[in-house]
Amino acid sequence: MQFDIEKALPVLERTPQVIEAMLYGLADEWIYSNEGGDTWTPFDIVAHLIHGEKTDWIPRTQVIMGEGSKEFVPFDMEGHHAVKKGKTLGQLLDEFKVLRKENLAVLKTIEINNETLDRTGIHPILGTVTLRHLLSAWVVHDLTHIHQLSRVMAKQYEEAVGPWTRFMGVLGGKR
Amino acid sequence: MQFDIEKALPVLERTPQVIEAMLYGLADEWIYSNEGGDTWTPFDIVAHLIHGEKTDWIPRTQVIMGEGSKEFVPFDMEGHHAVKKGKTLGQLLDEFKVLRKENLAVLKTIEINNETLDRTGIHPILGTVTLRHLLSAWVVHDLTHIHQLSRVMAKQYEEAVGPWTRFMGVLGGKR
Repeated sequence: MQFDIEKALPVLERTPQVIEAMLYGLADEWIYSNEGGDTWTPFDIVAHLIHGEKTDWIPRTQVIMGEGSKEFVPFDMEGHHAVKKGKTLGQLLDEFKVLRKENLAVLKTIEINNETLDRTGIHPILGTVTLRHLLSAWVVHDLTHIHQLSRVMAKQYEEAVGPWTRFMGVLGGKR
Repeated sequence: MQFDIEKALPVLERTPQVIEAMLYGLADEWIYSNEGGDTWTPFDIVAHLIHGEKTDWIPRTQVIMGEGSKEFVPFDMEGHHAVKKGKTLGQLLDEFKVLRKENLAVLKTIEINNETLDRTGIHPILGTVTLRHLLSAWVVHDLTHIHQLSRVMAKQYEEAVGPWTRFMGVLGGKR
């Protein structure tokens, strides 16, 4: 499937709703448990998505479309710690929803066509990337974190399902 | 985390909304593409969830709680083909929503406590399982298919993201 802005936008638009439906109002064990060690909780994941809205996708689109340096500012994988400080899950979900809406409004003001999708920026690790890569990665980044959320939540029931682990793909099983 | 009906129910209640937000109204490429070979499309996955509502979770709960044979009817992993025949995605999403609501209404009429959660049934492959295992597996089964949906969708952009694959967990990358 080729990147097509008309087919990508609805996915980006839905992500805040998807994540709100997955998490809002659930018991704390679902929200503040991780997969062990320094892995992320659902709460961390929402904060990370907010940090991406603030510093990653649209700012980098603006670098590609702008007249200045083509180099992206490195993304801070620890940036979510400052975002989540003192906040409730409800506040984070609302913040993500508002930022995503604002960012998609900005995206809609940008001329997206085959010429602009081929324009490039310089990623600090990946090197030269196109606007097409960046916008596709925004979609897949949302899906990566929905994937991660479902896995982190399932992990909390790893013992509870007993022998069923072997049929549960999300727990490494076969179905 | 121990199985607790009060903490599990909201997850089961939300799944139809989560999946509707993920899929409803998206372009056909998102809905009818799979991961290659005879893997499932998002459309197949919704049909499979409907088949589970009809033949798996509540019927098996009733076997455990009933007076008759404790043996579960084997689940048909091909049952979704008949479910999806001639249907649109919108119809399947509505059907899943209605069946889940009805099934949770049935579940709420059943006395769930430590004694009943320890009651058992006989799974055709897994052997003796408790009601606690079954109800936990229902939750994790939902999460398994949300996990799968996000992965099947991301797969369609595997080429489009270019060098970003290596940072995308859902495509086998490192983040």
